Amino acid sequence: MTPLPPGSTIGILGGGQLGRMLALAAAELGYRCHIYTPEHDSPASHVAAATTIAAYEDETALTGFATSVDIVTYEFENVPAATAALLAGLTLVAPSATVLGVAQDRVREKDFVAALPGSVPPYRAVASLAELEAAVAEIGAPAILKTRRMGYDGKGQARLKTAADCAEAWAALRGVPAILEGFVPFEREVSVLVVRGWNGDMAHYGPVENSHDDGILSVSRVPATVSPAVTEQAVALARRIAGALDYVGVLGVEMFVVGDTVLFNEMAPRVHNSGHWTTEGAVVSQFENHIRAICGLPLGCTDTVGRVEMRNLIGEDALRWHDLLSDPQARLHLYGKADARPGRKMGHVTYVQRD
Amino acid sequence: MTPLPPGSTIGILGGGQLGRMLALAAAELGYRCHIYTPEHDSPASHVAAATTIAAYEDETALTGFATSVDIVTYEFENVPAATAALLAGLTLVAPSATVLGVAQDRVREKDFVAALPGSVPPYRAVASLAELEAAVAEIGAPAILKTRRMGYDGKGQARLKTAADCAEAWAALRGVPAILEGFVPFEREVSVLVVRGWNGDMAHYGPVENSHDDGILSVSRVPATVSPAVTEQAVALARRIAGALDYVGVLGVEMFVVGDTVLFNEMAPRVHNSGHWTTEGAVVSQFENHIRAICGLPLGCTDTVGRVEMRNLIGEDALRWHDLLSDPQARLHLYGKADARPGRKMGHVTYVQRD
Repeated sequence: MTPLPPGSTIGILGGGQLGRMLALAAAELGYRCHIYTPEHDSPASHVAAATTIAAYEDETALTGFATSVDIVTYEFENVPAATAALLAGLTLVAPSATVLGVAQDRVREKDFVAALPGSVPPYRAVASLAELEAAVAEIGAPAILKTRRMGYDGKGQARLKTAADCAEAWAALRGVPAILEGFVPFEREVSVLVVRGWNGDMAHYGPVENSHDDGILSVSRVPATVSPAVTEQAVALARRIAGALDYVGVLGVEMFVVGDTVLFNEMAPRVHNSGHWTTEGAVVSQFENHIRAICGLPLGCTDTVGRVEMRNLIGEDALRWHDLLSDPQARLHLYGKADARPGRKMGHVTYVQRD
Repeated sequence: MTPLPPGSTIGILGGGQLGRMLALAAAELGYRCHIYTPEHDSPASHVAAATTIAAYEDETALTGFATSVDIVTYEFENVPAATAALLAGLTLVAPSATVLGVAQDRVREKDFVAALPGSVPPYRAVASLAELEAAVAEIGAPAILKTRRMGYDGKGQARLKTAADCAEAWAALRGVPAILEGFVPFEREVSVLVVRGWNGDMAHYGPVENSHDDGILSVSRVPATVSPAVTEQAVALARRIAGALDYVGVLGVEMFVVGDTVLFNEMAPRVHNSGHWTTEGAVVSQFENHIRAICGLPLGCTDTVGRVEMRNLIGEDALRWHDLLSDPQARLHLYGKADARPGRKMGHVTYVQRD
């Protein structure tokens, strides 16, 4: 692809903190951003040259948006497939609508990775209570029932301790198409952030070691405390997925580590919370590299500058901003959200111990 | 001062690249920015939550601006004194209107520093050709005649090789109040960026070693190749000035080095081009520290992370963006200006050699 020159306009679907951080990185390279979001007063809109506030189904607004930008990308993967298809007919879209279709559906995603081949823990598509019971009989309990679509941060999930929990779990998901995932007695959760350009060039960050709390990422650390064999497998799997998807941009791949084995968990077709440390902890951040990749620019150096830890500020954690600013080791990031609701990602803080 | 909490709105007078970089830093801490500028499509407006486009003399627009923000700061020091006074009557302003008055006038600025006391090269206020001739007779030639006000990047200046050049130099400045500055046979030009809070806390970056080309900053390097004695003098002078002005925010102080002596050249009551390297080269950048200072937050760590060089991209230099992005050592910053006119600051690039 001919590089999109600085001064071009990047359209971003979604107005959250990922869009905000993408817009900040794009601005450093001289690009303009145009945010498309149904939300008023969104975090990304505070730092963008233009914002369209409209529903993802509003074809008139989408058409106007597409014709006012040079490329469209996402900060939020749960946009309707029809939205992505409409935009792709009018302008460049990266990552592609096809990628979005795979990543939006936990079953398609796992089928895709299993076929690469990649190691995927046992899973079954489940569309009824009877199918759920059959699935539990096959893959055993404990297990987790998740919606196929629209899940994030532990939402849309029900745990089954035994086969006797089927009815309750099925009821909790309210009958939407689901996936049953076998319980993985993992030792660690890791992620790799791959960035891939239109020309197939790739670079990566990680593996990053992640801890979750109530299904929400709590802490990320690099380097991960894993063996060289695990590192090699994790990086190879993430790069294999990006290549097979003909992916353009940053792709987050989450994996479980069991002994010396890496198992696929899930992917996010966008910059990823477990890569937020790269703003201070890597030479070029995941945000800038996403912009470089989609704009057809050379990828930036992903080397880390030391040992790094990123802690999410969830809900009222963010009220500690003064203490965090008083700590010379802490680098604070807040997302400009007014309301510190429980479970809401309000910001993050990184700690870098330089090499 | 009670800290202004994140989520507050910072008003910035001026829409150029300094305002843009301040707005980016403010956003990382969760603040909103409102830009006030007479310019359409200004670099800072691309990354701000709100922009007012109006003249600096438009009292109605200024009043609306002041009442919509929690504090006002500058990215451009040549705003009329009446503008600053009007705003100061309506909201917090930092640095103060008094500081602006001193820094806007090369004679008041030098009188102020000389009285501290600080070493200032010979200078004379000049309001007529006769005064210019008398001044040259006193301080000698070569010398430089500069406008007292509104000068930057080598504009509003005329060089006198000998006393015979008086009439021509005076004509070149078109009769505006001026200052004659004795020629300083300096070995190096350095700057120190001081950041000072409302409570008097101070931190600094530098000395930075600067090279100019046609009166425009070309390259900045840290650490400067100066003796410990020069470092001590330069830092002490910059901090003394900031303290004496009861300054709040980042103050750029430019100095000449002659042997082991430091002489004051000029100051800028704002973040400074010679501090642009701090985005990658220091733990906390000058931009974030300016925001921290004016908002009453603890100052951030100003330690450098290695040897750093910053090169300005002037005019068509910026067209080299693809080559610069291909260099893994280079970190590119572009300001979103459409027109790469000769002499126009379009961006900069930093090179960090980590310790």
